[in-house]
Amino acid sequence: MRILDIRRETDFTHINLFSARYLDKSEKERGWIFASRKPDPAALKHKNTPDAVVVVPYHVEEDKLVMIREFRVPLGRVQYGFPAGLVDNEETIEATATRELHEETGLTIVRLNQLSPIIYSSSGLTDESLALVYVDCAGSPTSRHTNDSEDIEVVMLSQSQARRLKAHPDTCFDVKSWLVMNTFAETGRILA
Amino acid sequence: MRILDIRRETDFTHINLFSARYLDKSEKERGWIFASRKPDPAALKHKNTPDAVVVVPYHVEEDKLVMIREFRVPLGRVQYGFPAGLVDNEETIEATATRELHEETGLTIVRLNQLSPIIYSSSGLTDESLALVYVDCAGSPTSRHTNDSEDIEVVMLSQSQARRLKAHPDTCFDVKSWLVMNTFAETGRILA
Repeated sequence: MRILDIRRETDFTHINLFSARYLDKSEKERGWIFASRKPDPAALKHKNTPDAVVVVPYHVEEDKLVMIREFRVPLGRVQYGFPAGLVDNEETIEATATRELHEETGLTIVRLNQLSPIIYSSSGLTDESLALVYVDCAGSPTSRHTNDSEDIEVVMLSQSQARRLKAHPDTCFDVKSWLVMNTFAETGRILA
Repeated sequence: MRILDIRRETDFTHINLFSARYLDKSEKERGWIFASRKPDPAALKHKNTPDAVVVVPYHVEEDKLVMIREFRVPLGRVQYGFPAGLVDNEETIEATATRELHEETGLTIVRLNQLSPIIYSSSGLTDESLALVYVDCAGSPTSRHTNDSEDIEVVMLSQSQARRLKAHPDTCFDVKSWLVMNTFAETGRILA
C-alpha cells in the first residue's frame, strides 16, 4: 500500500480533516478521510515528538493510582482518565508531564519510571500520537491550579478501590485509564 | 460545565467535524471542535453500542497473544494492533468480534472471556467509542479473508517474544495493543 497524496479539507485551529489518496494491495486507487492535530499530517512527515503526553501517576506514600474525573466536551459528560496535555513547541515530554500533572492534580513528580514509545490513539480515525509517562508522585491532590475551561476532580485509588470502580456500571473511562486501572485492580501494580 | 449546542461543520461519509458551544465553570461561553463517526454526536445522544469493537485474542493451544500488523493510511505506515472493526447496524458486539477476527486473522473464537464497558479512544479529539472483547481463539492464522483495501499480517506472540518486541525501537503500536502487550510481557497473562 502506498500514499499518493494528502489534501487538507478544513481550516480550523486545533484539528482538521484530511483526505488521503492511496493505492491498495491490487494497485487500485482509494480514498481515506482522517482527523489530525498537525498542519502536516504524519503520513507525509514523521515527527520525533508525540502530539500529547499522558501521565500515569502512582502516589508512593498512599500506594494509590491517581486518576482524574474530567468533563469532556466531545462526550458531553464526565470521564475518568489520566492527567494529559498537548506538547507545546520545543517543550520536552518530561516538562509537559510535570506541568500537566501539577496543573490538573497539584501533585509533584518524584521519579520518572518509564516512558512509552510514541503510540497512536486510534489510527483508523486519526494520526494523533501520545507518549505514556509512568511516574511516582507525591503531595496532596488539589484542583486549584486548573483554569476555568477545565472541570477536574482528582481521584486516588487503592487496589481494592480500583476493583470496586471497575465493577461500577455507569462509569465512563478513556481507553488508557481503563486498561491501566484493570491491571492495577488485578495485580496491585502499574506495569510499565 | 454544560453543552449549549453542537453544529456539524463538514459533510463526509465516515467522519465529520463538529463544533460545540459550552459553558465553562465560570459560565463563560467557549467553543470546542471535535471529530465524530456519528451523524448525531454522543454529546447530544448517548448510544448503548460502541462505534467499534476491538478483539483481544489469546490463542489457547499456542499460549500466544494474537496481534496484527496493518498498513494504516492516516499514519502512512504499518502498525501493530488488534483485529477491529466498526459495528454494523443491528449487529451485536459478539457478531462483530467473530466476523472481524475471522476476516483479519482466519482464527475462530472458542470462548468469550470478557467484554469491557464502552470506553473512549481520545475524548479531547473525538467521541469515538469502543468495546474490548477478550477471547480465547483457535485455528491457523491466515490473511486470505482480507479484502484488497486491507494489508494485514497476523503475528502470534509468546511472553518472551512480547518482551523482545517491546524492546524494539522502530516498532509502531496503537495504544491498546501496546498496553495489553506490555502486561502480557510482564505477567504472561492477558488481564481482562
